[in-house]
Amino acid sequence: MKKLWGGRFTGSAEEWVDEFGASIGFDQDLADQDIDGSIAHATMLAKCGVITENEADVIIQGLKELKQKASKGELEYSAKLEDIHLNIEHHLTELIGPTGGKLHTARSRNDQVATDMHLYLKEQVSEIIELITEFQKSLVIQAEQNIETLMPGYTHLQRAQPISFAHHLMAYFWMLERDKQRYIDSMKRINLSPLGAGALAGTTFPIDRHMTAEILGFEGIYENSLDAVSDRDFILEFLSGSSMLMMHLSRLCEETILWSSQEFQFIELSDAFTTGSSIMPQKKNPDMAELIRGKTGRVYGSLMGLLTVLKGLPLAYNKDMQEDKEGMFDTVKTVKGSLKIFAGMIGTMKVKEEKMEKSVKNDFSNATELADYLAAKGVPFREAHEIVGKLVLECIQKGCYLADLPLEAYKSMNPLFEENIYQALNPYNAVERRNSAGGTGFSQVKIQIEKAKTSL
Amino acid sequence: MKKLWGGRFTGSAEEWVDEFGASIGFDQDLADQDIDGSIAHATMLAKCGVITENEADVIIQGLKELKQKASKGELEYSAKLEDIHLNIEHHLTELIGPTGGKLHTARSRNDQVATDMHLYLKEQVSEIIELITEFQKSLVIQAEQNIETLMPGYTHLQRAQPISFAHHLMAYFWMLERDKQRYIDSMKRINLSPLGAGALAGTTFPIDRHMTAEILGFEGIYENSLDAVSDRDFILEFLSGSSMLMMHLSRLCEETILWSSQEFQFIELSDAFTTGSSIMPQKKNPDMAELIRGKTGRVYGSLMGLLTVLKGLPLAYNKDMQEDKEGMFDTVKTVKGSLKIFAGMIGTMKVKEEKMEKSVKNDFSNATELADYLAAKGVPFREAHEIVGKLVLECIQKGCYLADLPLEAYKSMNPLFEENIYQALNPYNAVERRNSAGGTGFSQVKIQIEKAKTSL
Amino acid sequence: MKKLWGGRFTGSAEEWVDEFGASIGFDQDLADQDIDGSIAHATMLAKCGVITENEADVIIQGLKELKQKASKGELEYSAKLEDIHLNIEHHLTELIGPTGGKLHTARSRNDQVATDMHLYLKEQVSEIIELITEFQKSLVIQAEQNIETLMPGYTHLQRAQPISFAHHLMAYFWMLERDKQRYIDSMKRINLSPLGAGALAGTTFPIDRHMTAEILGFEGIYENSLDAVSDRDFILEFLSGSSMLMMHLSRLCEETILWSSQEFQFIELSDAFTTGSSIMPQKKNPDMAELIRGKTGRVYGSLMGLLTVLKGLPLAYNKDMQEDKEGMFDTVKTVKGSLKIFAGMIGTMKVKEEKMEKSVKNDFSNATELADYLAAKGVPFREAHEIVGKLVLECIQKGCYLADLPLEAYKSMNPLFEENIYQALNPYNAVERRNSAGGTGFSQVKIQIEKAKTSL
Amino acid sequence: MKKLWGGRFTGSAEEWVDEFGASIGFDQDLADQDIDGSIAHATMLAKCGVITENEADVIIQGLKELKQKASKGELEYSAKLEDIHLNIEHHLTELIGPTGGKLHTARSRNDQVATDMHLYLKEQVSEIIELITEFQKSLVIQAEQNIETLMPGYTHLQRAQPISFAHHLMAYFWMLERDKQRYIDSMKRINLSPLGAGALAGTTFPIDRHMTAEILGFEGIYENSLDAVSDRDFILEFLSGSSMLMMHLSRLCEETILWSSQEFQFIELSDAFTTGSSIMPQKKNPDMAELIRGKTGRVYGSLMGLLTVLKGLPLAYNKDMQEDKEGMFDTVKTVKGSLKIFAGMIGTMKVKEEKMEKSVKNDFSNATELADYLAAKGVPFREAHEIVGKLVLECIQKGCYLADLPLEAYKSMNPLFEENIYQALNPYNAVERRNSAGGTGFSQVKIQIEKAKTSL
Repeated sequence: MKKLWGGRFTGSAEEWVDEFGASIGFDQDLADQDIDGSIAHATMLAKCGVITENEADVIIQGLKELKQKASKGELEYSAKLEDIHLNIEHHLTELIGPTGGKLHTARSRNDQVATDMHLYLKEQVSEIIELITEFQKSLVIQAEQNIETLMPGYTHLQRAQPISFAHHLMAYFWMLERDKQRYIDSMKRINLSPLGAGALAGTTFPIDRHMTAEILGFEGIYENSLDAVSDRDFILEFLSGSSMLMMHLSRLCEETILWSSQEFQFIELSDAFTTGSSIMPQKKNPDMAELIRGKTGRVYGSLMGLLTVLKGLPLAYNKDMQEDKEGMFDTVKTVKGSLKIFAGMIGTMKVKEEKMEKSVKNDFSNATELADYLAAKGVPFREAHEIVGKLVLECIQKGCYLADLPLEAYKSMNPLFEENIYQALNPYNAVERRNSAGGTGFSQVKIQIEKAKTSL
Repeated sequence: MKKLWGGRFTGSAEEWVDEFGASIGFDQDLADQDIDGSIAHATMLAKCGVITENEADVIIQGLKELKQKASKGELEYSAKLEDIHLNIEHHLTELIGPTGGKLHTARSRNDQVATDMHLYLKEQVSEIIELITEFQKSLVIQAEQNIETLMPGYTHLQRAQPISFAHHLMAYFWMLERDKQRYIDSMKRINLSPLGAGALAGTTFPIDRHMTAEILGFEGIYENSLDAVSDRDFILEFLSGSSMLMMHLSRLCEETILWSSQEFQFIELSDAFTTGSSIMPQKKNPDMAELIRGKTGRVYGSLMGLLTVLKGLPLAYNKDMQEDKEGMFDTVKTVKGSLKIFAGMIGTMKVKEEKMEKSVKNDFSNATELADYLAAKGVPFREAHEIVGKLVLECIQKGCYLADLPLEAYKSMNPLFEENIYQALNPYNAVERRNSAGGTGFSQVKIQIEKAKTSL
Repeated sequence: MKKLWGGRFTGSAEEWVDEFGASIGFDQDLADQDIDGSIAHATMLAKCGVITENEADVIIQGLKELKQKASKGELEYSAKLEDIHLNIEHHLTELIGPTGGKLHTARSRNDQVATDMHLYLKEQVSEIIELITEFQKSLVIQAEQNIETLMPGYTHLQRAQPISFAHHLMAYFWMLERDKQRYIDSMKRINLSPLGAGALAGTTFPIDRHMTAEILGFEGIYENSLDAVSDRDFILEFLSGSSMLMMHLSRLCEETILWSSQEFQFIELSDAFTTGSSIMPQKKNPDMAELIRGKTGRVYGSLMGLLTVLKGLPLAYNKDMQEDKEGMFDTVKTVKGSLKIFAGMIGTMKVKEEKMEKSVKNDFSNATELADYLAAKGVPFREAHEIVGKLVLECIQKGCYLADLPLEAYKSMNPLFEENIYQALNPYNAVERRNSAGGTGFSQVKIQIEKAKTSL
Repeated sequence: MKKLWGGRFTGSAEEWVDEFGASIGFDQDLADQDIDGSIAHATMLAKCGVITENEADVIIQGLKELKQKASKGELEYSAKLEDIHLNIEHHLTELIGPTGGKLHTARSRNDQVATDMHLYLKEQVSEIIELITEFQKSLVIQAEQNIETLMPGYTHLQRAQPISFAHHLMAYFWMLERDKQRYIDSMKRINLSPLGAGALAGTTFPIDRHMTAEILGFEGIYENSLDAVSDRDFILEFLSGSSMLMMHLSRLCEETILWSSQEFQFIELSDAFTTGSSIMPQKKNPDMAELIRGKTGRVYGSLMGLLTVLKGLPLAYNKDMQEDKEGMFDTVKTVKGSLKIFAGMIGTMKVKEEKMEKSVKNDFSNATELADYLAAKGVPFREAHEIVGKLVLECIQKGCYLADLPLEAYKSMNPLFEENIYQALNPYNAVERRNSAGGTGFSQVKIQIEKAKTSL
């Protein structure tokens, strides 16, 4: 098979070298986008008089046929033809004859591949945004059912203050909301057409870049042809946004794993999202949560990979940039799969309210209440904190909790303590009273959920 | 010095352990933000009746005094007191007595440090946005002076097609414009107040988070207290945006270095941005461009570092998160310095037009013109490409360039070639005629520069 | 102050540009190494007749004086003089007059800085190796005291099989042993002298590189002068070895944090390695473990940073390479501090044997015993696994554990079950019987500890 | 298809969840290693009396049959069966009946997969070591042919001092030699058997881990069963060693690209390792060099990915660790391909000696000679450097080079200059005289090449 750019070449590469250099092994995933871009280009070329309407019709008819074949997996691809662009063009010429050779007028593979990827990412980011919304809904539904479910809130993985389980779940809602907003922001930079930038410098043909942009649904065009073919920011932005998303998921993974442990027992995951052991019959492993936590690594890796590729590259296109695709494809797959799994996993998990509540009652996470109690009576907070610290120490030495100490024990530390401290120490009250905006107080959590639902 | 949280503790750490754990060595850079946050908090506490107006006055007066001292470098910091928050509070209590202890009512170091960093990054990102604009102006000025300066355009570092030097410079303008837009987008997420989220759960005191947010100039508040203290997205977003910016600069660094080489000689950098060698007297090294290219690594590293820190962390605050600061400070310094250097370096460089133009005339970068010439006469582009490839090979074998071949040589390949091919081969004409939108044609470059100026 | 390389320069940089480019802010930590290298160089120059013995004496005397001053912090450094090399040379010339200018004969800053870093890292890696050994000793001591302490062994953070706590601790011993071996291996590549490589090409002076190498305690010299000044592998190897070490520590951090939680309660850390909360008086946070887990990020970041710096750099020295130092210094500090903290933290932690053992008795981690029991009687393991899985399910439905089921329940599943299953189910027996090489059986653990002690 | 661990499970996963979790899509590349490990395990089980000799024979016969099938691509794999281990076991049981179920006695997938990967990497690293040697030979051959080929040596991409092209090539020889030594060192840690560690704790069966280790060609066994199944250091060490290798290649890529440019023209790559343009007929792009430079990113990314995965993971096996494979496989493929390409590319490149030498004669890279000339006559080097700097400036202003200045111009700067400076300025002499050990002097280069050949 003859190379399409072979005019000036005398030697030729061995097959394994071709294969090492070829991208067709992965960029065939861009077949649809590539053909759509070509159809738009041919349409425009005819409208601008660069090729005849008749030529355009033949080309477009051929491309449509190829698209159908591709969708059925009937197109054969060859590493000899390097990439999706040359493979498609080769098939087109085989199908419609030399007129196929006119399609590449006034464009280059450099603007073509950039166009394909913009089209691809536009679609995928839209789908990811929807999947985020699905997962958010799943969180909101669980939250609504658990507004008054008490659990220990942690800092440093030490019990800190009792909170509403709904409040904890909703923290992830807002993380995901930021992820979504970042993807939406990135769309401004994805949704631009590089088509018509040529190899790097534009073209001498009287083309209309706005027309192809409009046909392809882009909101605008790149203002500089060199930038149009050299820019991979839109992929980096996707990878960094996705790294943050995966980081958020990894945190929820960690918690899901902790909560599923024998030690915590706060939730039970559905069998559908856990697996067993080939050797230990009792095991029910939170595999999906672990796997997603692990997959955070590959997304970080793809981000670092592409940042490395682009570092120090002179303008315009360099072959290094072929390395932009696999990490992007892999991240799309990882993010979409992870979101779908999580929506299901959170939606089907069984919350063990009694176990959580029992935890809350057997610890010192109500200690802040006492300090606030004193502070509210005018004791400087630092002093109140000191007093309560000593009471906690007393309990630890006696092997009891704060609610178990008699009133005298309190009064001997500070006379401002009164009978109503026992109400303050009750975890339910402690949570209910945290009614500052965005706090864990039940009424605040309800407001928060309403806001979330409005934003969906 | 007694620890402010030491109530329940019986043992105490050795000094070197304290130092390992303390953040005061670097978070003292947040002194201003910390004090501003405290003033806002005290003001609000009084307005809401949590402390008296009189107490607030004493506290605020004390804080203002400390701020002045801090600005003069007169505040002493101690690792024993861990961080900027406890150091400031300690100084306050020394200054105004036990009333100082009331300041920490209804807040925690967890929401306090988050507030400090939001305030800090808000300021810094604003300054960075201005510095980007300054650098963009510097690019536009150089571009305006070089619209008709011809240079070889490269792909694969091989000469591809002649372009306008202004067009090349303007490619960086648009990269920086995207960087700026990303910083602006990130502001939506930086400009939110976590203050009042408490340790993790909000507070039982009747505080007004909107009031403190307004005093501090934030546009809104975090909707969930757990999220407010656990979120470091705004720093990650800063680091990833900055990684992309540095990547862009590293590309211009690479080109600046190439252009300054004996082999290219396209520009001469001002002495102010180059250095000499301790052993080779003739050297004039583009040190600043190299250094900035190198500094790309540290910014990528800080991004990777923080992504690693946050991976798999359970809610809410964990001490790991103390590691969020140094990479952020370092990146702020690196980005600001790099932008300032570049604005100066591009502004003062001497462009060697004759050398560039000479390059353009001695290569095959006008070959595309010939192919386009034939394509415009109806030869399918692929066939035209093939013909020109053979002509190039002929030239190489004869040791000449395309403009040196006689017309017969052309006609023998294809009879459609006519005398006017020599005009097409002239690089000036080649550039001028690339008038597709965003192309390198002079009139397009002028339009592009006008758009850029409008956006500034 | 005049630049030492300023001969051909006409313009001069503004101060802030100098500061951006200067490395003296951090490479002053190499003052000792720099002076030692210069003493060796001067000694050799005289021995080889390049300078006179008298000149060498004056130079060496001056350098020794500067070294003393530097150790007392009495040397002033200036960013105008860029780096430690020019600063020292400047001070030397001020001290001993123009003879100082002869020191730089037959060398360059390029081989000088490489020499400094090789000397530095050689020292530091030796110290780190010792600190690893100290930490390993601390692990062995705790292990020896906990051979028969039972704890649940986990996979997927689910209880899997009971193990000896000593066995768990010893797993970290071997990880650290690998870290140590890697540092030792890296020494082969650290312990080489680049001195005498000059700027890049060697020198015309009749120097003796082996002599300086010997004086400085290096085992050999770089075989190629270009490589000698361009190589930073030895730092990368240090950073990647340190990344793995930190990864190991991060795993132990995670476990230390889990074990210290209210839910696990397996250990209690000494007060010396924990801290309290500014708002919650009951908190005892495993801060040091969290911080070290977090610091893993900065070490990964420094590795990524330097890999990025070096990617695609042409030979020989480029200013980008100045970025090799801060990450190295920071990693040295981080690794040394983390190892010291951990040796103390593990050495002083209180192991709560009863709590661990109670855990072991209240779970299904003895289920594998039953499967092995049947397999030993000839039931194919897969079948045995299936049977026990059903027994576990029965228990869960009944709310009991395996040891609580009556013998009939077993026999009804498979007649091969006999009375002695209750012995197999006893966790102590389960651990004791895992006597395969390297297993958790007590006698194996003792053998393992002996091997470890021998290797120390 | 029923899950092999399904005993205690009541619900079941949807297919897409299974697919997300399954590793069979990529770990099928371990089929050979998995079967070899099983054969060794069965052999040992029989020798130790855990299964009968007869059972072992049947199992081993079955496994051999499967291995043959696998090599022909005739084994079908199912995502429902998760991974290569369960797929193979399933096929085995289908083939030989319930006896197949005895194979999994006294082992777990946790030690099994670790064994597979140790076997795999042992093979691959051996092959990589051989490929490095091949590439080194290719470098040595080119070096031998170019000992007296002069080229400009660069620092800061500015011409610094003339060097031998052989010397430059040999710098890469030593980088690769370090890479090789690192791979060899890593073998100590790859070449260990985890088999028999069971799920995490060893086994109660009387197995012989040394026997399986010996059968599989391992040099030793892991001393701790928890460590055996949790350790992925050997993969990290492979990835970090490979990152350094790729970094070295990326530097040679950069130089190859520069040297192939119209501006340098130092070499011409064989057509077999370059490609053309779809739009610009004259282009001959150093695609392979660019692509390998780009592929550096993916290897860095895989390293960062796995470091992220392992950070903070508690012992022992967690599903996150399934993410250890794809990056490893991809890196093996990348490194092997890159080395093969480079051996061919360097071996077939055409060196343009005349062009290089012409470069050397038209610059100031002989300036150091003058400074050394004066220093050798007793002028302090710093002063000599200053004088030559001024002479260079004089040349630049006059538009000539140092050899063009008349002797008087020299003498007016310093009377020690004599007629023989013109010899010193001749680049050939300059190179020849740099005869310090490891320098670029021709005789030194010859010695260096001899050392290199001895080491091969």
